[in-house]
Amino acid sequence: MTVQTETTTTTTTETTDIYSAPFIKELIRSIQAQDAYGVYKSWSPELILKPYIVSKQDKRKISTEEEVNPMTIARIKLFYNAIATSIELETNQIMQVVISINHEGFGWALVFCGRLLVVSRTLRDAHRFGFTSLEKLEDEGEKMSQAGIELVKKYKEVCKL
Amino acid sequence: MTVQTETTTTTTTETTDIYSAPFIKELIRSIQAQDAYGVYKSWSPELILKPYIVSKQDKRKISTEEEVNPMTIARIKLFYNAIATSIELETNQIMQVVISINHEGFGWALVFCGRLLVVSRTLRDAHRFGFTSLEKLEDEGEKMSQAGIELVKKYKEVCKL
Repeated sequence: MTVQTETTTTTTTETTDIYSAPFIKELIRSIQAQDAYGVYKSWSPELILKPYIVSKQDKRKISTEEEVNPMTIARIKLFYNAIATSIELETNQIMQVVISINHEGFGWALVFCGRLLVVSRTLRDAHRFGFTSLEKLEDEGEKMSQAGIELVKKYKEVCKL
Repeated sequence: MTVQTETTTTTTTETTDIYSAPFIKELIRSIQAQDAYGVYKSWSPELILKPYIVSKQDKRKISTEEEVNPMTIARIKLFYNAIATSIELETNQIMQVVISINHEGFGWALVFCGRLLVVSRTLRDAHRFGFTSLEKLEDEGEKMSQAGIELVKKYKEVCKL
């Protein structure tokens, strides 16, 4: 990651720095918005996003027998909050986020507006929520946001119900 | 209630018996479907539905300071399950039900199909969920089901996404 940061300081316009990707910025903002005590204020973006990166090996170590960790649920919520705000910025429509996870780690992540389900994802093994790399995280968040934006544009009428 | 039952035995076609209303039947079915141990088998419809009837006076007695009683959450879920199956029967579309209630008794009751939010209700004071009469329960359930059916018919395309 340090190598990447170094290159971005030399090339100014076409930055390859993942931390300047719109979705990553939105996710950091969504995490900082919940930071009532200013804990993250001095943290680097890398450190703030670190809990989102879980290798396949690490995932296997997380037991799915117990309750889903409340911190993991909070992370899922903030991830979908970032998707919701990304969609809001583009569409000017206010989104609602509902995360519903049962004791077995199954459930739904829903982002909606009026009667339109803008994002609808079934969750399973929520205990092990995470991405193998920051690039994967950015890619998935960005894709879901874009798909949501398209949907809002196509079904604006349903969104306004 | 007994007077009503007596009148319905004499007038056969236009029955005023609330227990034969489609939504009430569906709610009883939805409760019985969860009755793995057959507890309700010998119960009268009146007894099965009794916990749904909460007078204004009784509501005031229920504290909203504590966690929402899991039985109350189950009752809310089954009420919306009955709405979902009522809509399914009319539209032949499979519905999903998500109930999300936080510790303060606020949340959402959502019934959806594809990308269409067929029923979307904000919940508050979930601790005190209940209806002042069986007629009110029937009326509200039936109204929500009918509104949902209309919506599915109007936006079938969104339902199939």
